[in-house]
Amino acid sequence: MTPSAATSPRASGRRGGERRGVQQVSDMAKEGADMTEETECMINRNAGKDAESAESSGDAKEMRAVILTGFGGLNKLRLGKKAMPELRDGEVKIRVKACGLNFLDLLVRQGTIDNPPKPPVIPGFECSGIVESVGENTAGLEIGDRVMAFVNYNAWAEVVCAPVDFVYKMPDRMTFAEAAAFSLNFVAAYMMLFEVANLREGMSVLVHSAGGGVGLAVAQLCSTVPNVTVFGTASCFKHAAIRDSVTHLFDRNIDYMQEVKKISPEGVDIVLDCLCGENTGKGLSLLKPLGIYILYGASNMVTGETKSFFSFAKSWWQVEKVNPIKLYEENKVIAGFSLLNILFKHRKSGLLKSVMEKLLRLYEQKKIKPVVDSLWALEEVKEAMQRIHDRGNIGKLILDVEKTPTPLMASDSTETSEAGEEEEEEPEGDNESKERMPFIH
Amino acid sequence: MTPSAATSPRASGRRGGERRGVQQVSDMAKEGADMTEETECMINRNAGKDAESAESSGDAKEMRAVILTGFGGLNKLRLGKKAMPELRDGEVKIRVKACGLNFLDLLVRQGTIDNPPKPPVIPGFECSGIVESVGENTAGLEIGDRVMAFVNYNAWAEVVCAPVDFVYKMPDRMTFAEAAAFSLNFVAAYMMLFEVANLREGMSVLVHSAGGGVGLAVAQLCSTVPNVTVFGTASCFKHAAIRDSVTHLFDRNIDYMQEVKKISPEGVDIVLDCLCGENTGKGLSLLKPLGIYILYGASNMVTGETKSFFSFAKSWWQVEKVNPIKLYEENKVIAGFSLLNILFKHRKSGLLKSVMEKLLRLYEQKKIKPVVDSLWALEEVKEAMQRIHDRGNIGKLILDVEKTPTPLMASDSTETSEAGEEEEEEPEGDNESKERMPFIH
Repeated sequence: MTPSAATSPRASGRRGGERRGVQQVSDMAKEGADMTEETECMINRNAGKDAESAESSGDAKEMRAVILTGFGGLNKLRLGKKAMPELRDGEVKIRVKACGLNFLDLLVRQGTIDNPPKPPVIPGFECSGIVESVGENTAGLEIGDRVMAFVNYNAWAEVVCAPVDFVYKMPDRMTFAEAAAFSLNFVAAYMMLFEVANLREGMSVLVHSAGGGVGLAVAQLCSTVPNVTVFGTASCFKHAAIRDSVTHLFDRNIDYMQEVKKISPEGVDIVLDCLCGENTGKGLSLLKPLGIYILYGASNMVTGETKSFFSFAKSWWQVEKVNPIKLYEENKVIAGFSLLNILFKHRKSGLLKSVMEKLLRLYEQKKIKPVVDSLWALEEVKEAMQRIHDRGNIGKLILDVEKTPTPLMASDSTETSEAGEEEEEEPEGDNESKERMPFIH
Repeated sequence: MTPSAATSPRASGRRGGERRGVQQVSDMAKEGADMTEETECMINRNAGKDAESAESSGDAKEMRAVILTGFGGLNKLRLGKKAMPELRDGEVKIRVKACGLNFLDLLVRQGTIDNPPKPPVIPGFECSGIVESVGENTAGLEIGDRVMAFVNYNAWAEVVCAPVDFVYKMPDRMTFAEAAAFSLNFVAAYMMLFEVANLREGMSVLVHSAGGGVGLAVAQLCSTVPNVTVFGTASCFKHAAIRDSVTHLFDRNIDYMQEVKKISPEGVDIVLDCLCGENTGKGLSLLKPLGIYILYGASNMVTGETKSFFSFAKSWWQVEKVNPIKLYEENKVIAGFSLLNILFKHRKSGLLKSVMEKLLRLYEQKKIKPVVDSLWALEEVKEAMQRIHDRGNIGKLILDVEKTPTPLMASDSTETSEAGEEEEEEPEGDNESKERMPFIH
């Protein structure tokens, strides 16, 4: 991984913004003006709270948190106050510094996740921070430890309690933003490549969304094994930033099957698919004998800003069911991988521990390094989520709990001319014409 | 593996014979008296040929071979003469000593295999013997080498030509019978456990037909990894012989799902299924998260002696198609494994080489050892096939090319009383009342 992938998210974000101008505006139009008002209102409210919570962070009975009030669009997210969580046996209380934002959080917001939580709920599955207090039976962790943690919701807040099995000490040189970008993506990528598949020297891997958090982790981990060929798909504007980590890079809108077959007629050994839908059949047919297709997400089921029954049903229908006898004849393997279920349903903490140890060793050896796309204040969670929805990110989006929101500003018409042109046709006061300046890591 | 597994196949065969008396008679009845006559006729003919071919084995233009004349019952198999195969570039000519008989050969006979050959054909996928001549580009092999070989049919003959990539030198202390029992079963078991699955310390494996060639190889290979639990199903009469190699052994007729769950409520890591049908759904539901189900055969599709459309369709129908999204939610893996396709369709000779090297090292270290059930003359191929059809074998059935057939003899009424009782109701001259005495290895 070259540092270049993390150098200019702002620039790429702007490019992404240009591309998505039309789409974004039409998506947003559904929620209309009230959402715009709400956003402004929320920000005004929080401007006051920031000062308040900063003063009383030590003994406060309440904390700031992102709250999902129901399933649906961006307007279901609010920044509010919640009671401090109570520490239980086997848990540590963490003063959160940074949280990871994943495509999964978008599915949670829409309610399209398996076993959705009951709102209101604080979203977020991973964070980094400092241990503030420890419960009984938490040997190995002490107050003041810099840690990263997996949690079953509740990460996007100032304070979270996490079971000790899911809390790991951060290496000294790792930043909080890096730590929040590290856990889920690298653990998912590692488990898929080395636990579910059995990546070895000379193999080939196809990964979609190669510029996303998991995609970049996959590419980096592949580079730790000699002579592995990585095929990746990503939006064209990301290619320059991720070219060094992917052997063959394709535009996400082209027929990647033909392109892969041109280069490797016999196919690939491992397909990692976060898209689902018709890509499942494509992935299976691209497999070499003894090859494995791993489905680890269904981002194609997300089209608009809110849950779309149509796109959901279409994706489900496009996923061809697989006859095991056909797999037998073709010597193929098909797998499903849900890290959330591994962690919080099956509670494979022993496996998690061994994987995290291996990953932290690779980090110390400077063989892997999380790529942070951009940092956002809790107040900016909607913009951040819109960015991941639009696949504008290269690497990980981070919610930085201590960051103050970037003031809204009119977009620079000299740099976003396309979007500007579209906006002229929109009603006055459309907030989409304003863009925050995310803090660049 | 204790030697006991190979000590008393004759005794177990007799017990097996008692059990299958009724079934066998009714199956055979379909083919009627002409099959009985044919069997006797073939044996008479071959008594003369044995002497003839023994005299002229050096420069003969013809050789003895088992010939499959069409798809169907046992009556489609004949011992006859075929022209000596011609050696081509990259091949060696092998004077065959012993051939492996697999359940696959039964599927070939019935025509239920994927891509069946065009009869007449000499069946057989593996053999051992001595290199008699070598073609161009066969470096590494010399005349006189003791070898074992994989061939795409044609093994069940006095002479076979095999591509050098599929021919391996035998260890000095390995017998020809062992070598013919070694190749397919151990390569299949090894590839499934270590290439398709990723068997590691502390895992658990469920294998059906634990007394068969692949089943025993699986159990032995599992014992090379620390702390692996093996669950096996097998007919009760085999239990005493294989008990030492399997941690938990169940009767093949009981509800093994319940038994496995009693011992291991969370399920198993690896299911190896050669049965198919309803066992596919059962196997999948027995998997732990991240567990893998491997379908490597469909012996449940074989019910009677000839291909049964009904049992075939029933098995196919019982194999539930798998929705990849369900695998995702459950973190499960499903694989198909066909060694024949790996070898002769996908021609993975590089993989085969590395697997054979590992297996031969394990053999030299006395960690694995093929179990031979019984040796049969080429003339006895029908009886041998009936034995594998009835699942009477413990370990591998071997066709011993140099063996003279055991004379037919009336069955000992004091020891096969059940079968004898049934036979009284059958027409006179029913050959089933005669049993050969297979040579015990």
